[in-house]
Amino acid sequence: SKSYNITLLSGDGIGPEVISVAKSALQLVASLEGIEFKFREVPVGGAALDLTGVPLPEETLSTAKDSDAVLLGAIGGYKWDNNEKHLKPETGLLQLRAGLKVFANLRPATVLPQLVDASTLKKDVAEGVDLMVVRELTGGIYFGKPRGFSTNENGEEIGFNTEVYSSHEIDRIARVAFETARKRSGKLCSVDKANVLEASMLWRKRVTALSSEYPDVELSHMYVDNAAMQLVRNPKQFDTIVTNNIFGDILSDEASMITGSIGMLPSASIGESGPGLFEPIHGSAPDIAGQDKANPLATVLSAAMLLRYGLGEEKAARRIEAAVLDTLDRGYRTGDIYSAGQKLVGCKEMGEQVMKSI
Amino acid sequence: SKSYNITLLSGDGIGPEVISVAKSALQLVASLEGIEFKFREVPVGGAALDLTGVPLPEETLSTAKDSDAVLLGAIGGYKWDNNEKHLKPETGLLQLRAGLKVFANLRPATVLPQLVDASTLKKDVAEGVDLMVVRELTGGIYFGKPRGFSTNENGEEIGFNTEVYSSHEIDRIARVAFETARKRSGKLCSVDKANVLEASMLWRKRVTALSSEYPDVELSHMYVDNAAMQLVRNPKQFDTIVTNNIFGDILSDEASMITGSIGMLPSASIGESGPGLFEPIHGSAPDIAGQDKANPLATVLSAAMLLRYGLGEEKAARRIEAAVLDTLDRGYRTGDIYSAGQKLVGCKEMGEQVMKSI
Ligand SMILES: CC(C)[C@H](C(=O)O)[C@@H](O)C(=O)O
Ligand SMILES: CC(C)[C@H](C(=O)O)[C@@H](O)C(=O)O
Repeated sequence: SKSYNITLLSGDGIGPEVISVAKSALQLVASLEGIEFKFREVPVGGAALDLTGVPLPEETLSTAKDSDAVLLGAIGGYKWDNNEKHLKPETGLLQLRAGLKVFANLRPATVLPQLVDASTLKKDVAEGVDLMVVRELTGGIYFGKPRGFSTNENGEEIGFNTEVYSSHEIDRIARVAFETARKRSGKLCSVDKANVLEASMLWRKRVTALSSEYPDVELSHMYVDNAAMQLVRNPKQFDTIVTNNIFGDILSDEASMITGSIGMLPSASIGESGPGLFEPIHGSAPDIAGQDKANPLATVLSAAMLLRYGLGEEKAARRIEAAVLDTLDRGYRTGDIYSAGQKLVGCKEMGEQVMKSI
Repeated sequence: SKSYNITLLSGDGIGPEVISVAKSALQLVASLEGIEFKFREVPVGGAALDLTGVPLPEETLSTAKDSDAVLLGAIGGYKWDNNEKHLKPETGLLQLRAGLKVFANLRPATVLPQLVDASTLKKDVAEGVDLMVVRELTGGIYFGKPRGFSTNENGEEIGFNTEVYSSHEIDRIARVAFETARKRSGKLCSVDKANVLEASMLWRKRVTALSSEYPDVELSHMYVDNAAMQLVRNPKQFDTIVTNNIFGDILSDEASMITGSIGMLPSASIGESGPGLFEPIHGSAPDIAGQDKANPLATVLSAAMLLRYGLGEEKAARRIEAAVLDTLDRGYRTGDIYSAGQKLVGCKEMGEQVMKSI
């Protein structure tokens, strides 16, 4: 039977609660599918800062690198918000992404028929939204150099960062996006600010050049400000969106909120080889941490993405996804997606219902 | 009687049509308020490219600088989309902003009771939205150096830009934002990405330091990805938002689309001294240009902002704003804001109705 090493990174806030549910789901589906998982749990983010003084201990990175896939809960909290940059929990997450070289971040935003009322958008606008943001994750302004603080010619303090992309970085994320679009509806929209930024002009040039290798994919381009509008105006016009690190950060969060159920949305970050990193797109929600109120479904669905994209275990992935839908169909809802007439449950109980459905 | 020199920049696409309506509105209100306007019309953007070979002719900039205020229609079109950077219509707009030193861009997003149905957001979410984005307009990644194309150590092409802010640049836009918030509900939200970017860390530090001078303004901070979500989840939580050039570009467009009526939204760009630049936030809409279909109200309301922020003619400004509301109350709608039971009119007829209301 197949055996996989999985690194579990609970992280901060509600991280431990949601990871615990996802771990149980993975164990159950493993026993049913004849798979074996070996879990190793190591600290990251604020939890790691408190334990070891750094947000990504070397042992955490090496454990993650040595495994077949990494499942992360959430990172960050008020407690560490005023830390210096190298001591921020977020820095640990960025180091982890860079260390694992997971340059492609896949963020689906899907409006489930069961949850269409959770969206703040009108029903006819939200209904049927099913898009995928492919965000470049290890380049651009997040990592570009030079960066830092300095003094300008007037003696004033300045803070600066560099938005930079190389042709290779653009090509590899574009290929992931073209492949993703090909498996979906065949429509790819590349988002940039090529009317202003040189980094975006190169982006557009390379994506356009590659498109001849994917004649079955219909490529379009959109400026980022227009994309932010079009997601509100008519999100259904999009299938696959590809964009840089910072625009992807903003647009994928906007897209996720359009579904109204960000407690439901998973993400996958993958590289050329090596383990992928799978995490819910929601944050660590420190205000409800430890209160058994968190929605574990985004992490459970991230575990499904781990099975599909990280391990190629499509059948096990589908089993988990079907179980989540079945649990919703049976009326179970955590507070964030609750509406009148449904069964309000906590994080643990939601987990147990998913196990039943599996 | 007071006399003002106004530079009119029709620009491209629907620009000439909407400017023509706004000019008539200004003329009418002038005669009623005992003001005199001298208009000079000069080319910018694609129109200037076609006439003179550059998107901002020297004469256009010097005319604008010598006037009391500048009213712009719209810029850009497919025709020039593949031009090199220095020959793009957009470059003319950026040069104009820089040349006039209008570092503060005020972009209101208001849901008028008459138009609440135009929003794609549910009525209870959209109703009563009334926020102002204060966007830094002459700094950051739009203008930062170094920028351009080069080759990296692997011989690959790279495209790069610099996001940079100095303490002075941050302070002056923050002051405009604090003053704006003070005149409104007293709530200011500063949006940045201080968990990742040094430029944002300096931004947050300076804005926070200044807040002690505005004890009556309640300051909060939000990461840009979260702001993109919160605008969709609950836009009413915001009053005044202050942010950098690129985040402001994205968020102000998102906010405007939340109103559902971007054909209604004006903007003002102002500096420390010298003429301000006033323009609708919508684009040049080349597909409907010259067809008498454009909504001129955003430009008419930009003329009202010109009167208020550019010339201090508050009474004349209110007169125009009241006339726009009255025209809507009387049921007149251009195609973009039309709904059943209203009177569908073209650009010119809408203009005539506004004149009647004035
Ligand atoms: C926590 C933060 C550094 C991170 C990012 O900006 O990438 C987060 O917003 C995300 O999108 O995963
Ligand atoms: C046309 C473009 C250069 C411009 C910008 O990005 O500033 C526009 O999007 C705007 O917001 O006025």
